[in-house]
Amino acid sequence: MCDIVFGPYERPVQYYETDRMKIVHHSNYVRWFEEARLYFLESIGLPYDRLEETGILIPVLSVDVQYKKAFTFGDTFQIFLKCVRFNGVKCEFKYEVRDKETGEVRTTGGSSHCFVTEDMKPFHMKMLYPDIFDTLKACVKE
Amino acid sequence: MCDIVFGPYERPVQYYETDRMKIVHHSNYVRWFEEARLYFLESIGLPYDRLEETGILIPVLSVDVQYKKAFTFGDTFQIFLKCVRFNGVKCEFKYEVRDKETGEVRTTGGSSHCFVTEDMKPFHMKMLYPDIFDTLKACVKE
Amino acid sequence: MCDIVFGPYERPVQYYETDRMKIVHHSNYVRWFEEARLYFLESIGLPYDRLEETGILIPVLSVDVQYKKAFTFGDTFQIFLKCVRFNGVKCEFKYEVRDKETGEVRTTGGSSHCFVTEDMKPFHMKMLYPDIFDTLKACVKE
Amino acid sequence: MCDIVFGPYERPVQYYETDRMKIVHHSNYVRWFEEARLYFLESIGLPYDRLEETGILIPVLSVDVQYKKAFTFGDTFQIFLKCVRFNGVKCEFKYEVRDKETGEVRTTGGSSHCFVTEDMKPFHMKMLYPDIFDTLKACVKE
Repeated sequence: MCDIVFGPYERPVQYYETDRMKIVHHSNYVRWFEEARLYFLESIGLPYDRLEETGILIPVLSVDVQYKKAFTFGDTFQIFLKCVRFNGVKCEFKYEVRDKETGEVRTTGGSSHCFVTEDMKPFHMKMLYPDIFDTLKACVKE
Repeated sequence: MCDIVFGPYERPVQYYETDRMKIVHHSNYVRWFEEARLYFLESIGLPYDRLEETGILIPVLSVDVQYKKAFTFGDTFQIFLKCVRFNGVKCEFKYEVRDKETGEVRTTGGSSHCFVTEDMKPFHMKMLYPDIFDTLKACVKE
Repeated sequence: MCDIVFGPYERPVQYYETDRMKIVHHSNYVRWFEEARLYFLESIGLPYDRLEETGILIPVLSVDVQYKKAFTFGDTFQIFLKCVRFNGVKCEFKYEVRDKETGEVRTTGGSSHCFVTEDMKPFHMKMLYPDIFDTLKACVKE
Repeated sequence: MCDIVFGPYERPVQYYETDRMKIVHHSNYVRWFEEARLYFLESIGLPYDRLEETGILIPVLSVDVQYKKAFTFGDTFQIFLKCVRFNGVKCEFKYEVRDKETGEVRTTGGSSHCFVTEDMKPFHMKMLYPDIFDTLKACVKE
């Protein structure tokens, strides 16, 4: 059983994630969302490397990020994540990125995904993998 | 005077842009949008390195990407870009990423930005930099 | 028949390749070497995506980079490359990265590689792929 | 007082660090070395963001990596680091990257650096920052 709102996933900002504007390059937040998402899956007993071995891939359908205040090297970020939709075919996550020191929400975002086999075909998760279906279903907080 | 719809900005996919799923990692499209945007600015006579020297930064406020079909190594992408809003304080772009060989639209997205000084303060572009204001204003296609 | 010294492979520096020190992050030169190497392979009729389809992978055994003067956004780099060793089992490249505007050599480096099948096993290139062997052999300048 | 051989610095491999060959892209090890190096500096009381504020930059002069066996997503790496040379003007590090689960050394490497001011000029560290000089000097294991 997972927490309804999951987190925080946290780590320090890497130097190589900053750019010439002296802040974290905005593309990296999309990677941070992925880190938090895979950490979440691992935490509920579904490590993504094992899902891949099972033949389940979870590609990204869409992503959005809202930048309120930048992070830079020296900061530690915390990501809180919510699975807001899951029906066995698609799922959707929302993210909040906070500064660890102050708790300030500096970035928000979302991503939507589908579930496919290795040859990128959709499949019937509830029927083929009922345990995985139930585990994910139990985490949804709409 | 720039084209109302700008593009294409094109280049081959880099090997290091792919991931274990054998496709381009989804975070890279945010970088590709930036490449297209900076190429666009250069094409209308506003190379971003010179804007930075003038003291003008254009940070990203938000970004969104819709993934329809993946690119991988061996593909060449083309980005078509439209400046859909500009008022001297903020601006907004839309992007279409096509496969060069087939013309197929594989990714779409958008980004919004503000204009600030080096110490991240907004400024009155129409008053301080009327030429830059006019150049950008002339490119808008709402 | 390829040029004994190959190049230049050139492109502008990307904004996202810079870091907080306002210069290109040093890890990116390893990626630039790869870009030049794959461009070289394509130029001699051996595009790497087709080599992969044939079942030939060319992983990196070692890499080294010497940083003399940094590149930053606004610069265009040129890479000149030399295949200094090839025996069907391993190969070795040397790289020079120059500033396009001044011709100044700003970075040098090298990389060594082996040839393996998809399951990471070595194979007898001269026997299995004599044409590829001959093409590469003809490019060596020790 | 720091350990003569420092480490491990460890973390799981990120999904986005892998490439189409299904292994970690070789450029990322250069970033991992940086992570370990900055973690080392922080551990001996010299966090790099504070060094930068003081006006001290430590650019990279050269880097080399030897790849013995690849990491991929699902692995956790450990880096052990040794400062093998330091004279106030330059310093040199050696790295060993091990698989956390097996202890196997999969990658080795080195990097050399200089110390400069923000305008990239060398300075006399022993005279200007004797405390920093002594702290680093105490860590050297030739």
